[in-house]
This record gives sequence, C-alpha cells and structure tokens, in this order.
Amino acid sequence: MDKINEAINSIKPLDERAMAEARRRQDSLTKPQSSLGQLESLSIQVAGIKGDARPLITHKVIFTLAGDHGVTKEGVSAYPSEVTPQMVYNFLRGGAAINVLARQVGARVIVADLGVASILERHPQLKDKKLALGTHNMAEGPAMSRQQAIRSVEAGIELVEEELTKGIDILGTGDMGIGNTTPSSAITSVITGADVSTVTGRGTGLDDEGWKRKVKMIQKALEINRPNPKDAINVLSKVGGFEIGGIAGVILAGARYQIPIVIDGFISGAAALIATSLSPQVKPYLIASHQSVEPGHKIILEHLGLKPLLNLDLRLGEGTGAALGIFLVEASLNILNEMTTFAEAGVSEKND
Amino acid sequence: MDKINEAINSIKPLDERAMAEARRRQDSLTKPQSSLGQLESLSIQVAGIKGDARPLITHKVIFTLAGDHGVTKEGVSAYPSEVTPQMVYNFLRGGAAINVLARQVGARVIVADLGVASILERHPQLKDKKLALGTHNMAEGPAMSRQQAIRSVEAGIELVEEELTKGIDILGTGDMGIGNTTPSSAITSVITGADVSTVTGRGTGLDDEGWKRKVKMIQKALEINRPNPKDAINVLSKVGGFEIGGIAGVILAGARYQIPIVIDGFISGAAALIATSLSPQVKPYLIASHQSVEPGHKIILEHLGLKPLLNLDLRLGEGTGAALGIFLVEASLNILNEMTTFAEAGVSEKND
Repeated sequence: MDKINEAINSIKPLDERAMAEARRRQDSLTKPQSSLGQLESLSIQVAGIKGDARPLITHKVIFTLAGDHGVTKEGVSAYPSEVTPQMVYNFLRGGAAINVLARQVGARVIVADLGVASILERHPQLKDKKLALGTHNMAEGPAMSRQQAIRSVEAGIELVEEELTKGIDILGTGDMGIGNTTPSSAITSVITGADVSTVTGRGTGLDDEGWKRKVKMIQKALEINRPNPKDAINVLSKVGGFEIGGIAGVILAGARYQIPIVIDGFISGAAALIATSLSPQVKPYLIASHQSVEPGHKIILEHLGLKPLLNLDLRLGEGTGAALGIFLVEASLNILNEMTTFAEAGVSEKND
Repeated sequence: MDKINEAINSIKPLDERAMAEARRRQDSLTKPQSSLGQLESLSIQVAGIKGDARPLITHKVIFTLAGDHGVTKEGVSAYPSEVTPQMVYNFLRGGAAINVLARQVGARVIVADLGVASILERHPQLKDKKLALGTHNMAEGPAMSRQQAIRSVEAGIELVEEELTKGIDILGTGDMGIGNTTPSSAITSVITGADVSTVTGRGTGLDDEGWKRKVKMIQKALEINRPNPKDAINVLSKVGGFEIGGIAGVILAGARYQIPIVIDGFISGAAALIATSLSPQVKPYLIASHQSVEPGHKIILEHLGLKPLLNLDLRLGEGTGAALGIFLVEASLNILNEMTTFAEAGVSEKND
C-alpha cells in the first residue's frame, strides 16, 4: 500500500495560474470568446494539469491492460475467455482496433498482462504484471485477496513509471478481458449506489436471457461478498478485476506525474471510480473520451461530473475511445498554441 | 439553372453492393459486431458513396466560403461586418482556427469570396466568386435576386469542379460571414416549419435584448418577403446569403461527384436544407460533423435525419467542426482497411 499512498500524497491541485493564462490567451484568439466550447476548456484543463499555459503534447501513450474473470463460468459473456489471450497477441501484432487508432493519432500502445488466465508467450512489447491466472468467480466469493487488489493498483503505477523516461505527455487507458463488464457493473453499483439492473448492459452481445442471468449473478455476488463502498480496495478485491485495479493505478500515477488522463469507456470508468475513491484529487486530471453504450457508464460519468467528448455508440474498450479523445485534446492544444490573436491579425473585436 | 439541374440529375443512390461488402468485412474484424458503433456505420456509408468496399481517403478539402449580410444594419450581430474580410485574410495567412484544425487532419482549405462587402486584395489562394458587396437587408426586401441565388449555388458547384483535378476524396463545408446566423435561422424556420424563436440563437454573442431584436427582425423579414418553402431558390433569394448558396452548391457537387460531404454547423446546416430541398437524393451523402450551440442546428439535424458525430458546444463555423469530423471518417476507414479479421488473427468468434 506504500506505493499507492506515496502516489496519492503527491497529487497536487491543478495550476490556477497556468489555467488563467491559458484562458486569457483563448480569449485573445481570432474567434468569438468560448466559440470553440469544450475544445477551449480542454486546453485550459491541460494547461492546469501540466502547469504550463502553452502545453505541448509529443509523447502519447495508451495503456491497454488485460485480465481474465472467474465469473465467466456463470455464462455472463457472449465470448469465451480464450479470446483474452488471443486478443493480447492481436495487440502485439498490431492488428486490433486500438493499434489502428493509436497509429492514426501517433500514440504508442503499452500492452500489459495483469491476470490473463493462461501463460502468455514472452514478447518484447508485452509487460508482464501477472497476478494470477484470472480472478476467482465473484459469485462464489471474493474475486481476489486484498493483497492482490493492492498489488494490481501498484502494478498500474509501475507501468506508468516504467514509461516515464521515454516520455508521456498524455495517457489513455484501455482494457481487454472477457467478462469484465460484469465486475465493472458491480463496482459501479457499489460506489455510485445505483441499482444493479440500471448499471448492467449486454457487454459484447448478450441476449435478454443472458442479461437477466448477468444481473442476478451480480446481485448474488454483492450479497455474498458485501463490498464496503467506503473502502475502494475492498470493493476491488471483492468484485473487481486485475486489469481494473491496474487501470486505477495508471490513473493514480497519471495524476501524480501531472499527465492528462484520457479515460476510455465503461471498464476504465469503473477503474476511475476506484481511483477517485482512493483520492478525490484525481478528478481534475480526468478527461472522459466518450460515452459507451453500456448503461452504467453514463452513471459513472455523472457521478464523476465528467462530460464525454464523444458519443459514438462505442462498446469495444481496448482504449479505442481514449485514442479518439487524445486527438481532440491535441486539437484543443493546437488551437491554443497556433492560432493568431486579434492583435496579431488586425481583426476587430466585439462591439460593446 | 442548367448547372444546378445537371448536378441534380447526375446524383446516384449509394452503391448497395459496396455497402454490403463493407458491412461483411466490418463483421469479420476482431471485435464484437457493431462494437465500434458510428465508426462502423460511417465506413459503410463512405463505401456506398464511393462505390468501393475498401475506400481510401488521401485528398481532403475544406471549402470555407465568405459573404456579408445587409441585415447586420439591424444590429443582429455582436461583431462588425468589417470582421468578415479581416477573417478572410486571416484564413489566407493560416492563422485562424480552421487553418489549425485543417493542418492537423491534413486537409487543404479553399477560401472563396462569394459576396464580402468590400473589395478584397487578390491572393493566389483566394477564389473570387463575388456576386455582390454583401446581400441587401432582408428586413427591407429580398436579400438577393433570384438570378443571384442561382449563381451562388452554381459558384459552389464550380468551386468543387475546379478542385477535382487536384483530387477530392472527402470534403468539408465551412462559412465566414458576420450576421449569417440570421439568414440561417430564417431559412431553417421556412424549410422545417419551426417557429422563429426556437431556431434563433445568440450567434457570436448577443445579449437578451439583442436576441429579442434578432427574433423580431427575422419575423419581420419573413412577413415582408413571404419566402416559398416549396422553392429553395426562392427561400435563398429572399432570406439567404451568398456563402449559404455557395455551400449548397458545394454540397450538390459533392453528391454529384460521389464525395462524402462532412457538413459543419448551423450555417452549413441551413445550406444543407437548401441543397436537400433542391434534391432529396443528396441526403445519403451527408455526414453531420457536430451539433452546434445554435438551437436551430438541432432542428436542422432532426429534419435531415442526421446524427452528429460530435457535441462539443462549438459555434465558430469556418469548417472547424467539419475538420474534426473528417478525422473521425478517416478513423472509420482505417478500422475498415487496417484491422485483421478473426480468421487472420486466429481469434475465436462469438458463442452460439
């Protein structure tokens, strides 16, 4: 827990001076004030995060963390667990959606095994942070031990720290794990207080029967495990997942190292609930890339007070929404840095 | 009118075979079917537009058309008309928001004078399609003659045709014209049948008094001019603008030459109403980049049955939303073209 506490204790509030200066510059650019809406506020947020009124983004990194879930035995997913390692290899070969979108936005993808339920072949691009061969079935007891929950968050912090020397000016979060909308719904219900049925969706494609089974199973898991909403590590251990804990760690480290954090969809959102429960000071560092089709994601975003940049009916994960979000953050900074001011361009300002 | 009729008569329906083939490919890629939502449907739409199941986009062009409005005499804008030519020069020097975002997405910007109210200096990058030194004040009579309305649409068609040899794989629309939310609200009210007050916003920043004046003035202009909702050229001539007619022409030409058309915000939306009134066959070629803050824009998008890709509280125009939309269209095609299939990657498909 030392590593987690060290991260939490190092998180600073955003730099108000840099934000005020960025706001002044936005207001001096050749456009009506605030006419670029969220693109303006994004640039100001990033200025505050980085403590720099004219921040530049060169190194973009998407962390895609993989883990498996014992709960898949209950038939809560349309796909078999073997897809998790298959997709990890797909990431490493560059053929998945996240690879395509990361290439487009010029981001590197860090793929990490937090707890895939099979022994993966070594690969120079694969980060080995395996905690176990998948979680236990949360319908029968805790998904993992408290110690494993702590270690999963610490592993996420380590992943960010290991990349710092190569440079990270912005980071995106991503996940891969068959069955992981189930723990995400459970976490969302516990932390936001919303009813299980309102935060549970169809994941990769359940039918009506499958959806009902999933809701009942999550309700059962919550009854058996009685997670404590005031203790995020407890929630993570009872009904979480290794990759979810890892993403929570990536988020904590992002805030600790003053890196803008572009969160992906529902699974990353559940991880953000864990991270912000551990430290509410994380919140101003978060940028919500998109709103997922999963109904629980909307509830997470409202709980965190975040307005998503995109609403494209995405429900893939991997960091795909985060990659698109990184493009928009870059757009916001290009506006801030490259546009001319009214004075420079000789353009008349607003009538009084 | 011959040029307009020739364009209209040449518009074909989308290529169903290319769309079906693109849909099949999307379903074979290593992701749950439809999990990339609008990114998938966008790629299929573009396949249908181009008649190519694996379309590529190399040449991206944003058309930013400028014009002035006699109605500014009524005090309907927060900025003086002299800003229109100043911003045209800003576009030509590359310092405006549209230049910044077009650079980011690799698009070239075509700047055209359709009717700026001052004589602009010649510039190799400025297309001269000037029809008059601004429109007449629509609160006193028709904004332009029927012949000018026709010519403005034809000028837009010409702009696209003049760029065809350099290549246009996708186009975005954009506008510059102090006061042009006023004709856009008038057009929207006439064509959609919505009440003036529901389609009128604050433009570049009117206060409450200014907004009330703007609504009254538009109501007066509609009473005086009695535009005929069944005749789009009549509507354009009575309460339109030169750049709005020009954008309608750009849209018609896009559909005629099988080019995906990414429409910007409210002003481009009003032009899309003109274009689709002239020919409903234009509709499947349209991609709505974003939903503007201007309340009339939502009504336009609903009328056209378009779901915007972005909702970032933009209200700048120039083609800025279209530039961001072009990035998302490219993302959709990169997914279609670059992802591996289940078979190629050896990934298991969905359980039965």
